[in-house]
Amino acid sequence: MPTKTLEDLFLDGVKDIYYAERKIIAALKKMARGAEAEDLKAAFDKHLQETEGQVERLVQVFEILGKPARGKTCPAIDGIIEEGQEILEEFKGSPALDAGLLAAAQAVEHYEIARYGTLKSWALQLGRNDAAQLLDQTLAEELNTDQSLTRLAEAKVNREGKQKVA
Amino acid sequence: MPTKTLEDLFLDGVKDIYYAERKIIAALKKMARGAEAEDLKAAFDKHLQETEGQVERLVQVFEILGKPARGKTCPAIDGIIEEGQEILEEFKGSPALDAGLLAAAQAVEHYEIARYGTLKSWALQLGRNDAAQLLDQTLAEELNTDQSLTRLAEAKVNREGKQKVA
Repeated sequence: MPTKTLEDLFLDGVKDIYYAERKIIAALKKMARGAEAEDLKAAFDKHLQETEGQVERLVQVFEILGKPARGKTCPAIDGIIEEGQEILEEFKGSPALDAGLLAAAQAVEHYEIARYGTLKSWALQLGRNDAAQLLDQTLAEELNTDQSLTRLAEAKVNREGKQKVA
Repeated sequence: MPTKTLEDLFLDGVKDIYYAERKIIAALKKMARGAEAEDLKAAFDKHLQETEGQVERLVQVFEILGKPARGKTCPAIDGIIEEGQEILEEFKGSPALDAGLLAAAQAVEHYEIARYGTLKSWALQLGRNDAAQLLDQTLAEELNTDQSLTRLAEAKVNREGKQKVA
């Protein structure tokens, strides 16, 4: 008799992203301090505020499930953030630093897009429509942030990274 | 005088995804063996073949850059794959196993989508249009695979995961 259910998988996933979001808050603070361009700093600061709201939504999801808000170590986000940290160290003082930080932030966004998309789908399957709605709000924010970062990258950061070394 | 350029960042990124793709090949083999549903096994096998072609394209990108095809340890993919491995172990025999494996595969896809999107953009900025074209071909495949997995998840795997435990 299997003991693990989709409900268990869903709860594990919520714990995973709860851990991830709090790691992301710490990483975004470092990235905002490290970024050279003011508009990239501003983009990181804006997403930092948004992320704090996303953590609040996860606390509400835990409440819906009747479970304590508790994270579960997420090696994926640890690895993704580690790569951003490497960029900060290895490209400090380089004209390509901002392009690297922006790419690191987009890797974070895509991890979140994958996870929130999955969690929303599982919440709907489990009939947890209230949780699905909260997860969908965050998913929409993540998709929007990723698109804003792409626009910033293509319009400015990558171009400057190249021009300064040309 | 900064020594690191966008060209360095681009080469580091190609090495990172080259390492990642080869790790993904090994992980997909395990996931195809572990999956319960035949259509999920088939989806993993199909993507395995596609991934082998993507590695070949990266070898071509290294050739364009005049650099040896060499990977660079990518803690992000190591972490993402580790989470898939945890699902395989913790949900073995569970009706939710396939839903978990599918979610793990989508996290991998999104990592690749983020990286190939970035690398294509950098290749264009650097005037490496031949490399950009190769990277864009892989990006299109990854986006397509992610959409196929979403359809499979919503149509079948999550629903079965739920029904078997109901």
